Amino acid sequence: MYTIEEYRNTFISHLASKSTITEPTNLYTPIDYILNLGGKRLRPVLVLLTAELFGTDHRKAIDAAMAIEVFHNFSLVHDDIMDAAPKRRGKATVHEKWDVNTGILSGDAMLIMAYQYFEGYDAPTFKNLVALFSKTALEVCEGQQYDVDFETRTDVQIPEYLKMIEYKTAVLVAAAMQMGAIIAGASKQEQDAIYAFGLNLGIAFQLQDDYLDVFSDPKNFGKQIGGDIIANKKTYLYLTALEQSDDLTKQKLLDAYNMQPMNNDDKIAQITAIFSSSGAAATSKATINTYTKKAFAILDTMNFATDKKTVLQKFGEDLMSRSV
Amino acid sequence: MYTIEEYRNTFISHLASKSTITEPTNLYTPIDYILNLGGKRLRPVLVLLTAELFGTDHRKAIDAAMAIEVFHNFSLVHDDIMDAAPKRRGKATVHEKWDVNTGILSGDAMLIMAYQYFEGYDAPTFKNLVALFSKTALEVCEGQQYDVDFETRTDVQIPEYLKMIEYKTAVLVAAAMQMGAIIAGASKQEQDAIYAFGLNLGIAFQLQDDYLDVFSDPKNFGKQIGGDIIANKKTYLYLTALEQSDDLTKQKLLDAYNMQPMNNDDKIAQITAIFSSSGAAATSKATINTYTKKAFAILDTMNFATDKKTVLQKFGEDLMSRSV
Repeated sequence: MYTIEEYRNTFISHLASKSTITEPTNLYTPIDYILNLGGKRLRPVLVLLTAELFGTDHRKAIDAAMAIEVFHNFSLVHDDIMDAAPKRRGKATVHEKWDVNTGILSGDAMLIMAYQYFEGYDAPTFKNLVALFSKTALEVCEGQQYDVDFETRTDVQIPEYLKMIEYKTAVLVAAAMQMGAIIAGASKQEQDAIYAFGLNLGIAFQLQDDYLDVFSDPKNFGKQIGGDIIANKKTYLYLTALEQSDDLTKQKLLDAYNMQPMNNDDKIAQITAIFSSSGAAATSKATINTYTKKAFAILDTMNFATDKKTVLQKFGEDLMSRSV
Repeated sequence: MYTIEEYRNTFISHLASKSTITEPTNLYTPIDYILNLGGKRLRPVLVLLTAELFGTDHRKAIDAAMAIEVFHNFSLVHDDIMDAAPKRRGKATVHEKWDVNTGILSGDAMLIMAYQYFEGYDAPTFKNLVALFSKTALEVCEGQQYDVDFETRTDVQIPEYLKMIEYKTAVLVAAAMQMGAIIAGASKQEQDAIYAFGLNLGIAFQLQDDYLDVFSDPKNFGKQIGGDIIANKKTYLYLTALEQSDDLTKQKLLDAYNMQPMNNDDKIAQITAIFSSSGAAATSKATINTYTKKAFAILDTMNFATDKKTVLQKFGEDLMSRSV
């Protein structure tokens, strides 16, 4: 068993070794750009780690790790177009650096390339991986659609929000882990368990992301602090603040989410204060903790050696205590 | 062996039987819309027909036919965004009826759904089909990129144009036929031959499409006549007219392609006249004929029963003598 840092380095080296721009260069240059913008490489690391957890050399899982990371970046490129986001990991987004058409087409190519990475596996494994991948990818699209739908809806409920982030984010984390298990030849029961672990961890991860979007140190944060507030995103913090506020504060929050002020700093400060005073920030922290614990309770039911369990435990803890 | 019309009806019935809109409806309604806009259903018919050509019940090929048609429509939805096209088959395009974000996301879902249609095949067949599908889909993206690149290039050569339409259009026709052959368990040699047949037929088909874009009866034509001229598309007609014209006419053509006039009708009339007088229209017809003949020369080398060969022959002839 290696450390998370070692898996990450292995993946990054592999990614770099595969980095070549072929013709037509206007299609492949943006792909190379987004794949090399950095990031935590969370999902591919989970593929490698899970393969080892189930007793297989992580190098056998490197192609699936590539598929997952390329797909994740495809979804970022297309989502950034839909959100009209200018920045990603502190750099210009693809549609900003090039144009929307480039973002669409290079994204499409990435989705197809993600599928091609599975071709190194034997036919039965290939079919298992590709079927899981397609199911997951479609759920990610559905999650994105719910996210878009929520922008114009005023009656979004917290369970709906949780379903949305489950689809948009958590299923890919879960599928990454199940893929490691598939490659290692784990049983269906083991696959289901590790998928459930990943799903709960993924929900916790996204809730944490929402939390950090507001309560983060601007120095270390690649995106704009309060980006979700500026975009009037109905996040867990927002929906919880609505639920936990008196009528006056609730109205203040609703009004603030209806305006596009000249100065976003005031809006961010005002809403951040409500997120804190209403107790939504604390509730959010508690919910993150609940999902994380649920994930580790599943882990406890699985028969991993202690040293393997420790790596995963530490990984989850690091993920949840991160400040960016 | 059935007639082309019977294969088409089989496919259309199957498509209709699969037509259900699930949640989130904002994602799936546009997909249902574009899939039911009609069209010749050329590619799925070729999948079914080829399966029978190689001795297998065409019903075994229906899932692959669905995959190919859903993929084709995905590419139309995304291409129409890139081309800012308002109409498709005489109706509003998806991004026009809804918006660009809907076109992007519903298109993405279609690409993934296309892959899912292969899941009904056993693992070795699944892997063969999916690998061919991915290779083809990526080539279609590359073809679209070349098409975009050509918009701003002034030095496009005829062989480059032919390569572009081969990727953007012909490879999918060829892959549709190879898929029928794969499902029927045809040898690699037979697969290669039918792929080559489809590739040549596909190039002829696209050249014919370009030709009909200019020289078509407006009454029967779903799109705007001269759409390529308005968009200053460097088509085979245009590139050939440049090559076959004297300097004065050449300059006239170059000038006309540099302007965005108030009245497109004049521009279309002027350029159509040059396409005729330069001999480009006749050359285009001759080239279509060459590729069609090349396709049927390949067919002649294959050991099909005469009645089967006749169906395919008639299909090719109908395709090439069409007026829309």
